[in-house]
Order: sequence, then C-alpha cells, then structure tokens
Amino acid sequence: MHVKKVLVDEQTPYQHLQLVEAEFFGKVLILDGIIQLTEYDNAGYHEMITHVPMLAVEDPRTVLIVGGGDGGSLQQVLRYPSVERAVVCELDRRVVEVSREHFPGFGDPFSDPRAEVVFQDAFTYLENPPHTFDVIVSDTTDPIGPAERLFSPDFFRRLAAALNPGGAIAIQSEQMFFDQALIRDIYRFAKTLFRSPAYYYTLVPTYPGGGIGFMYMSDVPWTNGLNKPYPPGQMNYLNPEVHRAAFALPEFFRRILEG
Amino acid sequence: MHVKKVLVDEQTPYQHLQLVEAEFFGKVLILDGIIQLTEYDNAGYHEMITHVPMLAVEDPRTVLIVGGGDGGSLQQVLRYPSVERAVVCELDRRVVEVSREHFPGFGDPFSDPRAEVVFQDAFTYLENPPHTFDVIVSDTTDPIGPAERLFSPDFFRRLAAALNPGGAIAIQSEQMFFDQALIRDIYRFAKTLFRSPAYYYTLVPTYPGGGIGFMYMSDVPWTNGLNKPYPPGQMNYLNPEVHRAAFALPEFFRRILEG
Repeated sequence: MHVKKVLVDEQTPYQHLQLVEAEFFGKVLILDGIIQLTEYDNAGYHEMITHVPMLAVEDPRTVLIVGGGDGGSLQQVLRYPSVERAVVCELDRRVVEVSREHFPGFGDPFSDPRAEVVFQDAFTYLENPPHTFDVIVSDTTDPIGPAERLFSPDFFRRLAAALNPGGAIAIQSEQMFFDQALIRDIYRFAKTLFRSPAYYYTLVPTYPGGGIGFMYMSDVPWTNGLNKPYPPGQMNYLNPEVHRAAFALPEFFRRILEG
Repeated sequence: MHVKKVLVDEQTPYQHLQLVEAEFFGKVLILDGIIQLTEYDNAGYHEMITHVPMLAVEDPRTVLIVGGGDGGSLQQVLRYPSVERAVVCELDRRVVEVSREHFPGFGDPFSDPRAEVVFQDAFTYLENPPHTFDVIVSDTTDPIGPAERLFSPDFFRRLAAALNPGGAIAIQSEQMFFDQALIRDIYRFAKTLFRSPAYYYTLVPTYPGGGIGFMYMSDVPWTNGLNKPYPPGQMNYLNPEVHRAAFALPEFFRRILEG
C-alpha cells in the first residue's frame, strides 16, 4: 500500500491512531499499526458483521455495537426501519471524531436520532447495561491491547446476558489461517451459551491474509436470515449466494473447528 | 513473512527463481519476486484449480497442465484413477527440478508413469498439440513477463481447440479486488467460446489480497461436478460446501462481471 498523505497521527489515551490517504484504497484508518478499514474494501467487513445477525432476527429494534467507532457498522444497522435504538459503545472518543470528519461515505450515522454513543469500555458497560438488545455486533480491534478482555468467556457471558430472546450476536473473530486456536476456543465456549453458533468469513484484501471471520452466536440459526428482504439501500458485498457461502469453511478448518 | 533461510536463488533463462524456508509457512517458491506457493497454504490453490474442472467432466482420461512445474496440480490430477495421461507443459525446467527436490509433500508426481513433462512454451505447444484433452488446467504465473501471452484471446482459442467435447478448463485468473478489467475481459471472451464460463475464488493468504480466482471454461456447467464422488486421498480445502461457495461472488464484483 502506497501512502500518499498522513492526515492524522496521534496518540490517544488508548492507542496510536493514524488516518492516511493511500493510493487505490482511499482513506485508511490504522490503530496501533493495524489497518482497521479502507474506503475501498470495508463493505465486506461492515455488511457481513451486521446483516448476518440483523437478518436472522425478526424485526430487530435494539442494537448494540461494541467498538465500531468508525461508524461503518452503525450505518448498516440504521438501514433497518425496525431499529429504534442503536448504541455504539466505543472506548476511544477520538476514533469517532476522526471518522466523522474523514469518512463522509458512511453518511454520518452518529447524527441519526436513533443512534447513541457511549464512550466507555464495553466490558464495564455490559456489567450492568441500561438496556437489553435484539442484536449485538462486536466490532472490535484484535485481542491484544485494549480489546483483549473483549475475547474472554466473561465478556461473552455478558453479551449473552444482554441479548433478548430470539436475538443474535456477531463477533469479530480473526483469521482462520492464522488464529485457529483462538477461534476454536471461542467456538467451543459459544456452544456452551447458544444453540446455533457458527463461524463465517468475509474478504477484506487489506487485512492480514486477506479476510476475517466472525462468530455468529444465537439460539436462532443463521439460515433464518437467508430469505429475508434486504433493508433499503444498496449492498456492495452481500447477496444471497455470498450469505450462504460465507459459512462454507475450507476442509482443514472445518476439521479444526469440529474436531 | 519471516524468511529463515534462502535455499535457492538463481536466474534461470526465463525468470528469477527463489526458494526460501519461512517461519510458519514452510518452504516458499518465489518467481520474479512473486510468491507462487507455500507449503502451508497451497491446498486452496491446487485443489480448486484442478478438482473443479476434473469433477465436472465424466471420467477424465487426458489432462493438460499449462505451467504447474511445481507439481502441486499434477499431484491432484493423478488422484483420479480414470486419468491415463497428464501432460505438464512447463517453460522452465528449473522450476520442476527445484520443486522435485524441495516439495516432497507433493509425492513426486513427475515419477508417475502417467505423467509427461514437456519443457516448452504452452502457446507454441498448443499451436499443433500432439493430443487433445478432457481437462486443461492453466496454472501459470501472473500475466506479466513469460506468461503474458497465456492470457490472450489467441491462447484461449488454442485451449478451446485442444479440448475434447464435454471437457473443462480452469485458468488462473487473478484477483477480483485488484484485476477487475482483466477478469471481465477474460470472462467476456470466454462467453464467446463456451456455453458455461464462470469465475470462482479460493483463499490463499500469502497471495496479494489473500486469494485468487480461476475462470472455469466449458460447455458443461460447473455444477455438474457438485455431487460427484471424490478421488482417493484426502482433501484439505475442498468440500461440497466450499465447492459451491467458491462461485458465490461479492455483489460489487458480480455487477462488474455481469454489467
């Protein structure tokens, strides 16, 4: 990736935040040296982490986004007319401020009256949350540094406790080629909490290995979302074939997960 | 990728050939500075470029591999008891020699009596080929340098002319995020030659963008291969779900291809 211009480069109270303008990929948000999103290829991430749980749930009204301060997941969630409240629980205020300024393509979802931002660590927020939720999207950084606790059994229990019956969760869950032990552990623990957990995958060419996975956690099978009408607005990554394909895991990894 | 040891580094008559031992990925073959395969993640490439056309064809007896001097595709093709002849048309003798020495995991398929190696440019070989084939696998480098002509309409016409009725072809066809104009051109031209061309995708985390696609070219739909028994031996990437999922294209790319 060839960086044309560094637009933001600062140490926030939580992390090293950079926003650069790159050739081909457009603006790029980087936290602690790791690419979080680019304008060019974020659709695969944001559409898949949100619509898979949103479509699986009947008329989701309340949504929690853990992390997600860039606004990309919030934008997708607010496309559903059924949504009445979408809470973004983001640790780092600067992520929201910088993203609102530099990613106008997300349509400033934070200005939507249904959106609510809580600047707090999600682990603490979920100790005694003021609401429960139909859908929870855990749109975090990697499990090192600030987000480490957000990949723990204790956190998953808190997510489960904050979920309404019939609800669904999607959790950013790393790379099937590089993080197999972590994903297997999350999957095994998810099976103790929910009837229908499943790992699914999306393509993000600027991430290490070119993609990332999510753990779907719910008592409702993900296939429940397959034949639902899409919300207004255009999909750039998701379509019904991709929805199903995302859950097809390469044989080596299926063996690891089920073994 | 952290390189532990450089095992081969030479200029052949055709290209810069390197073979290194890397942490995590094992041995890595690099041609003109571009990673061709690693021991760790080549299954997605070799299984998908071979089995998709092989399974679509009824009892394939004759196979041509264009390029493929590393032996990975040849190994997969020779798993089919129906195969009587598999010709590898590889430009660079050194690729075969170095791979036979350093990739014992491929089981030295070149020593199989059904295998035949022709050290020749495939464009020339196919001007007047001594055989026709039930399956052709074009397992080439990128369309720059030696392989440039192997992405031309003239070459595709030669492939089509060398294919038996009911046969199928798979062509290494680059990256849907980065090579959209090239893939669209190949697809459009393929439609002038065959009834059922289709682009499909596989994950190779050490390739740019983390994956690569293939153009399936045939009058036989790729779905013909979906419910066939697998040949003896173990699959590490392919399974029936992944077979179907490989043809599910993200919405932005589906629009580009069909638009």
